[in-house]
Amino acid sequence: MQVWKDYQEKNKDRFLEELLALLRIPSVSAKSEHKPDMLACAEAVKQRLIEAGVDKAEIHQTAGHPIVYAEKITDPSKPTVLVYGHYDVQPVEPLDLWNSGPFDPTIIDGKIFARGSCDDKGQFYMHVKALETLIQTNTLENNIKFCIEGEEEVGSPNLSTYVKANTELLKADCVLISDTALISLDTPSLDIGLRGLSYIEVEVTGPNRDLHSGVYGGAVANPITILAKMIASLHDENNHITIPGFYEAVLESSTEERALMAEAPFNEAEYKDDLGVRELWGEAGYSTNERTGIRPTLELNGIWGGYTGEGAKTVLPSKAFAKISARLVPNQGSDKITELLINHFHAIAPPYVTVKATLHHGGEPYLTPIDSSAYKAAAKAMETTFGKTPIPVRGGGSIPICSLFEKELDCKVVLMGFGLDSDNLHSPNEKFDLANFYKGIETIPYFHKYFEG
Amino acid sequence: MQVWKDYQEKNKDRFLEELLALLRIPSVSAKSEHKPDMLACAEAVKQRLIEAGVDKAEIHQTAGHPIVYAEKITDPSKPTVLVYGHYDVQPVEPLDLWNSGPFDPTIIDGKIFARGSCDDKGQFYMHVKALETLIQTNTLENNIKFCIEGEEEVGSPNLSTYVKANTELLKADCVLISDTALISLDTPSLDIGLRGLSYIEVEVTGPNRDLHSGVYGGAVANPITILAKMIASLHDENNHITIPGFYEAVLESSTEERALMAEAPFNEAEYKDDLGVRELWGEAGYSTNERTGIRPTLELNGIWGGYTGEGAKTVLPSKAFAKISARLVPNQGSDKITELLINHFHAIAPPYVTVKATLHHGGEPYLTPIDSSAYKAAAKAMETTFGKTPIPVRGGGSIPICSLFEKELDCKVVLMGFGLDSDNLHSPNEKFDLANFYKGIETIPYFHKYFEG
Repeated sequence: MQVWKDYQEKNKDRFLEELLALLRIPSVSAKSEHKPDMLACAEAVKQRLIEAGVDKAEIHQTAGHPIVYAEKITDPSKPTVLVYGHYDVQPVEPLDLWNSGPFDPTIIDGKIFARGSCDDKGQFYMHVKALETLIQTNTLENNIKFCIEGEEEVGSPNLSTYVKANTELLKADCVLISDTALISLDTPSLDIGLRGLSYIEVEVTGPNRDLHSGVYGGAVANPITILAKMIASLHDENNHITIPGFYEAVLESSTEERALMAEAPFNEAEYKDDLGVRELWGEAGYSTNERTGIRPTLELNGIWGGYTGEGAKTVLPSKAFAKISARLVPNQGSDKITELLINHFHAIAPPYVTVKATLHHGGEPYLTPIDSSAYKAAAKAMETTFGKTPIPVRGGGSIPICSLFEKELDCKVVLMGFGLDSDNLHSPNEKFDLANFYKGIETIPYFHKYFEG
Repeated sequence: MQVWKDYQEKNKDRFLEELLALLRIPSVSAKSEHKPDMLACAEAVKQRLIEAGVDKAEIHQTAGHPIVYAEKITDPSKPTVLVYGHYDVQPVEPLDLWNSGPFDPTIIDGKIFARGSCDDKGQFYMHVKALETLIQTNTLENNIKFCIEGEEEVGSPNLSTYVKANTELLKADCVLISDTALISLDTPSLDIGLRGLSYIEVEVTGPNRDLHSGVYGGAVANPITILAKMIASLHDENNHITIPGFYEAVLESSTEERALMAEAPFNEAEYKDDLGVRELWGEAGYSTNERTGIRPTLELNGIWGGYTGEGAKTVLPSKAFAKISARLVPNQGSDKITELLINHFHAIAPPYVTVKATLHHGGEPYLTPIDSSAYKAAAKAMETTFGKTPIPVRGGGSIPICSLFEKELDCKVVLMGFGLDSDNLHSPNEKFDLANFYKGIETIPYFHKYFEG
């Protein structure tokens, strides 16, 4: 559509400036000190939606950070697309590894470096600008709703309550999300599956106080040593997870699906080189793409205990802690796996220590059928702007709200992401390529044009 | 000796008053604001030694806080005893947990509450008053030297240089130190061994940056998991340390020594109750006292990696770290064990990660042979005043100056302490029992009488 192309070309600098302004707001949902920034960010998102031309934009309070809701209803008899995204971002630590300030967006070689540039401010903002394009060129034919939340990075603890209480308001024929990655601009892809999540924290208590490691060392269990032994026991020599029942509900992929997956381009040497590792690691019997796509995993996200400062302190600590999460695949249930994890830690705790395992948050795995009308519209939109049919892939990450939306709104979710795996999500120097940002804004209007509900 | 008893009985109130005056000087070596107090304290110690009757008392400057040196040479052909102690004290924080001012010595129920009351002002001052007793009753037959330093609580950074530069001045037939504890006044004991130390830090690097645990989890080794597996492998199922060669130089204790050690009173139920643990832990085949006394150990002093803040972050971290220290027993060499530890970590590192292990610091273990003339004199002195043979015990901590003295002065060190484990060393409400203070003053002259060089 030449009219879209002209409008976007004329306004591209402003689109970018608006995104950079949004990236300057340190909307870290995990830290209570950023509460005012969260409110400021929600307000900014609402204003940008109003400026884009929606009929209605509102900030809806939750028990946590607010949700921005907006809608442009053209004709209630036409299909409705609900765009979901999130304005909150991950914490930025370790700060010293950033080459520029995480909230001081810096453009180098056509890439925007900033926390949230890709995950997810840059991506949901493509939808705001696509909507603006459609409205301002008078070409919007369907209805578009926005639900932009502020708690995705802390597990969306209040979204479920909100969605359940607002099913009429949010009612749609599909949910469209850009919070995933393309294989590359040359090889477009669509995520058809996402892994679920069970995230727990484990606290191991040995003696009731920090002890002198000389006076007591050797006679009292060290909670760090015990925690390490428990962690070490979670994977066997084939890197299978040892928790009883963990794999029970796993839907094994067919030989056909595995053969299709194997066609996705993958260069192991480049992959290792990019990560700076000499050898890859993983579950025996599965390829790298399978390990991150169709297999569940168990990762240590954090560990701490004892003296961690400069120099040396001869302490035998009272406590050690770990943050541990499992990625789940269909049909593993998050509640069930969380229960297995927590029970397992309590079961393997030796009598020298006390172990407390608690849930942080969880989410269900998700699978989008490639014969759904929403998937078809997304594939056709990409064919139009990329000139190639996108490859369906199974992503390793988790967007737990997919299964929530499917269940509560009774419609399919399409994951049309424009990021790249190399975008350093959740890491220092997160980035988003300008080319991907503009490609998203170019492609999204076609989705709305092609989606038939 | 009735003459000593009479002299001490007559002067006991003054002895105590003098100690209380010394305790009022806030000689905290760690804090530069106390530099004037350190000088005042050194000066007071020197004056008290002069008043006790030494031939010579001097303040020797070092690169840090000064050392007080004094001597009483009766007959150069007779044995010489070097008394070592320290006039500096630990910081007093947290102040709000003290029941009385740390530098306002308060006597309650026969106990002196003050910082330094036991560690070590009260203990080295027993030697000053024992010396006075010997001189004033004309019963001193040997030679006594004093070396009272002001930096023990900060690791004696300048003592080694001082001792090496003054071997002639400090030359002695044994070094006598009161800076340890008795089992109780009913159960006298002598520390015959202290453990050495090898303290290292381990850094495990997986991918070259923090990764999203969903996108990469399952395909790239997690450095926390790998570090945990390495730590878990350091102890076998009997809690023996698995590092090849670790036990090679260990001087096994004789059946006799172990039988003697087993006579020390030990109440496992009370020990567990005090620490708040349901079960003790340790190397199979050894008792708790043996585990902390005659056996080397390997302790995790700290661990950290990944996200350790509030809430949850789904990161697969680039790095994980641990602080690890071994306590050594004779004849394990600190340099040798450090080399074994570092080499072992490099050897067991799997190819998925890079491991860097580095030294923090080390110290040699120490053992006083129970057949040495110095030990025999101390045991006989205690038999005389306690009416019981002291139990030789092996302490779990480290006093690195012991091996310094032995090496530089070529003589044995005797640890004849009169404190109690319950004296709250380094903690709020440090105390020293008056009964222990007077028992030390009563016992020490017998050591000089019995010591044959």
